[in-house]
Order: sequence, then structure tokens, then C-alpha cells
Amino acid sequence: MGLPDENIHPHATGRAATTVAEHQEPQDLIFYSGWFCPYVQRVWIVLEERGIPYQYKEVNPYKKEAHFLAINPKGLVPAIEYKGRALYESLTICEFLEDAFPPSTSSVLPADPFDRALVRLWTDHVNKQVVPAYMRLIQQQDAQKQRDLLAELTKALQTLCAQVKGPYFFGEQFTLVDVALAPWVTRDWVVAEHRGYSREAVGAGWAEYAARLESRESVVKTQSERVHFTEIYGRYLRDEAQSEGAKAIRAGRSF
Amino acid sequence: MGLPDENIHPHATGRAATTVAEHQEPQDLIFYSGWFCPYVQRVWIVLEERGIPYQYKEVNPYKKEAHFLAINPKGLVPAIEYKGRALYESLTICEFLEDAFPPSTSSVLPADPFDRALVRLWTDHVNKQVVPAYMRLIQQQDAQKQRDLLAELTKALQTLCAQVKGPYFFGEQFTLVDVALAPWVTRDWVVAEHRGYSREAVGAGWAEYAARLESRESVVKTQSERVHFTEIYGRYLRDEAQSEGAKAIRAGRSF
Ligand SMILES: N[C@@H](CCC(=O)N[C@@H](CS)C(=O)NCC(=O)O)C(=O)O
Ligand SMILES: N[C@@H](CCC(=O)N[C@@H](CS)C(=O)NCC(=O)O)C(=O)O
Repeated sequence: MGLPDENIHPHATGRAATTVAEHQEPQDLIFYSGWFCPYVQRVWIVLEERGIPYQYKEVNPYKKEAHFLAINPKGLVPAIEYKGRALYESLTICEFLEDAFPPSTSSVLPADPFDRALVRLWTDHVNKQVVPAYMRLIQQQDAQKQRDLLAELTKALQTLCAQVKGPYFFGEQFTLVDVALAPWVTRDWVVAEHRGYSREAVGAGWAEYAARLESRESVVKTQSERVHFTEIYGRYLRDEAQSEGAKAIRAGRSF
Repeated sequence: MGLPDENIHPHATGRAATTVAEHQEPQDLIFYSGWFCPYVQRVWIVLEERGIPYQYKEVNPYKKEAHFLAINPKGLVPAIEYKGRALYESLTICEFLEDAFPPSTSSVLPADPFDRALVRLWTDHVNKQVVPAYMRLIQQQDAQKQRDLLAELTKALQTLCAQVKGPYFFGEQFTLVDVALAPWVTRDWVVAEHRGYSREAVGAGWAEYAARLESRESVVKTQSERVHFTEIYGRYLRDEAQSEGAKAIRAGRSF
């Protein structure tokens, strides 16, 4: 009956497991997570960055369980419930957390309206250019097309890299661009091991920026052990994944 | 040399021409527009809805003129310049206008953080589901695939329609969901005349909601005469368009 994709290690491991253990108490904000999911990690990073109280609940989204479909009819993680109302889509949740928990101390958006717009513009670039290129590259089976897609991913990263002010995308502040991108940086070993990607080949500054993202405390604290990702990414690398994302990429659809 | 797409009536007509004429004076905000462009119309609707002072400048984005590439390196309209800084991407500009012109009187986002999130969630649905389905449908040449894509567009609209509170998407307030969608509603005659679409077939309430959107004052004031669209959409309907959007759709890319 079930999808092969349901076959996922049942819970977070490593540093992420510690973070999960620390967030079991009931709170106004319930965070429906899949430990393995890069979109989930975006929201998780923001929750940790901003010190927002949350209760962690692990979901296997491929099972499409009724209790979870009541939260997100699309059946995708991440989702949240806040004072009884449900919300989903990673970036929409991140924006909600800015609006609902006004940035007294920390924020992933700059205060200046124009700077906020630039952060949203480049977050959109991550979402529309970087992430789809990564997904297409891992699913592609044809060697020549893999080379074309590797070039496409590299170019999308170069375009972004040219804008990095350092140490983070927008300077000292860790913003939504870094949040949106970091989960794919911590997973770029998949394309490095199987598709010929290298951080150095992207060009000046990329490897350093990538290293800063993956060593950011909020990123480290939300990261599980690599070994448990290999089965999941194996399905993508053989183009056997049946997730909504994998199907959309295969059909040339936006996701 | 030039793309066939450069061949566009050079300026707005009808009610939109009057609106253009009223916005020639220099202002802090310069609006780089193409009268024909649905993404442009989103920004234009917000400017009109909110009464933000702006100077209208017509651009033919297919010409990729140096002065415009300096504003938007992607060479796409809409773009704005505000106090000397340039910005592009329709929805990013709309969000910027909320942040830069705080909503004392009017706003296209609700005040409550959760309501804002829902508006952003459904704006995302318009962008990721409705608009690409419309674009794929007009470019598709194969009759069977046209039927499949018409079903896809209809389904995306039904999903949206089921959420309409009335009179507008989110109730009395005219929000970003209405803004993001309206330009495709005023252009749905293209798929009605050539691809078998009908408002009635979408189902209960859709035709009424669509009629309310296209008769909203800000939409009427930014709409040019239908006759000048026929050449442009002819290129899409024959799949001859060479715009960035047309190429992305053809390649199964998000845009
Ligand atoms: N656009 C969504 C994507 C979320 C998503 O694709 N989540 C995956 C896990 S990484 C999921 O829940 N998949 C379940 C399925 O495909 O059935 C977001 O940004 O939140
Ligand atoms: N995602 C952009 C799309 C803008 C866009 O595609 N504009 C078209 C006109 S409708 C354009 O400028 N095309 C020029 C080209 O394709 O070269 C937005 O939302 O602003």
C-alpha cells in the first residue's frame, strides 16, 4: 500500500535529537516536523534563531494520516498550529513568525523596507532557481543532462554568491536568504558525491559562505546525522521517489 | 535582430491610457511598466488601490535596453525605482509598498498576523498553480494535452474558489490574493475563446467573484483595450512567444 518514501528513519538523530528532546512541553505553537525535510529545517532554524517557544511533533508526511491532513490538506511538512489555527508552506510560516512574534531582539528580516524587499527578492531566487535546480539534478538519470543541470545549479549559486555581503548574505544579520538556503547547503554532499558538484567550482567565496551557514548554531542544532539521509536520497538519485516534490519535478511543474 | 515579442503596441489604451496620463509628474517612486503585462498590473493595482504617488514610465522589456537592464538585470517589468534604489518582481514590490507606505488608510494585507499568513498562502497558490496552468494551457498545441491542462487550470481555480469568503477573497478587504489573480481574470477571454475555458464550468461562485474582480475600480483603471492584446496572445497561442516566461514554461521550469 504505502509509498517507498514512507520508509524513513522514524526520528531525528544527533544534535537535532537533543533539540527535539528539549521541545516536548506543550506550547501555544506546535511545530509539525519531519526531521529529514529541508523545508522543515527552514522553519526550525527560525524558531531556534529567534528563541520562539514551540512544541516539536514528528510527522511522516508520506503516510497522509488523517490527523495531519486536518492540519495541512496538502499533507506536507512543515506545518504549524498556533492557538488552534493551522498554517503551512515554509516561507509563509517564516513570515508569519516575524509578524506574530515582533522582532524585539532578533529577526530574519532587516528593519528597512527596501532591505526587507532585497532579502525577499533573493529568497525568491533560492526558491525558484537554486532549489529546483538541485532537485532536478539529483533526479536526473541521463549523464549529459546531469552535466547541463549541474551547470544550471552552479550558475544559480554563482548569481547568489555575487550578492553575498559577508559574513552572511545580507551582512552581519542572519536573514531569510540564509535560512531558505542553508538546508540545501547541509545537503550538498549528495550532489558532490553523486553528480560532480563541488563548492570550489562555484567560485570565489562560495565554500566559505557555505561553511559559515552550516556551522551556524541554529543550523547545527536542527541537523540529523548524515547516515539516515542516504536511504531517502538514494530514492531521489535513482529517480524512484514518489513524493509530491519528486513528481512535480518529473512533470516539469513548479512546486 | 529583435524578438517577435518586441512587436507590441507602444502604449496603454482605453482607461489605462487616462491613468498613465495622470501619472507623468516626477515622484519619489518611478514605476517601470509594460501596459500589457499581467505582473505589471498587480503592482499598478496596488499603487492605485493605496493612492501611492508614482511616475509611470513605459518600457518594452523585450528590447533589453541598457537603461532598463540597469534597473532590473533580468530585464523584466514590473520594476520600480524608489529614492534611487531599484527593485523588481511583482509580489516583492507589492510587499515593499506595504512596508514602505505603512497602511494608515488602505492595505492589501490584513492586520492580524495569521490572516496575513493566509493571504500570503493563497497568493502563493495563485502564483504556483493558477498562473503556470494558464500559461501552459495557452502555449500547448496538442488537443489532448490542452484538455488535460484545462482540467488542471479549472481545478486550481476551484481550489481557490472554495476559499473565497466574498465579496473578495478574504471578505470585505481587497487583498493581495485578489491583486495577484485579477490580471489573469481580465485575460481569461484568451482561454475562453481558444481553449474551451468557461467561468461557469469552474463552478458555483466563480463567475461572480471573477466579475467583481474585473469591475474593481483599480483593475478597470489599469486595463487597456482588448484589441491590442490579440497580437501578443496570438504568439502564445501558436507557441511562438520567446519571452522569458514562454521559454521557462516550454522547458518545464518555474518562473
Ligand atoms: N513548498 C513546501 C514543500 C514542503 C515539502 O515538500 N515537504 C515534503 C518533505 S521534504 C513533504 O512533506 N512531502 C510529503 C509528500 O510529498 O507526500 C514548503 O516550502 O513547505
Ligand atoms: N516573475 C516576474 C515576471 C515578470 C515578467 O515576466 N514580465 C514580462 C512581461 S509580462 C517581461 O518583462 N518579459 C520580458 C522578457 O521575457 O524578455 C514578476 O512577477 O514580476
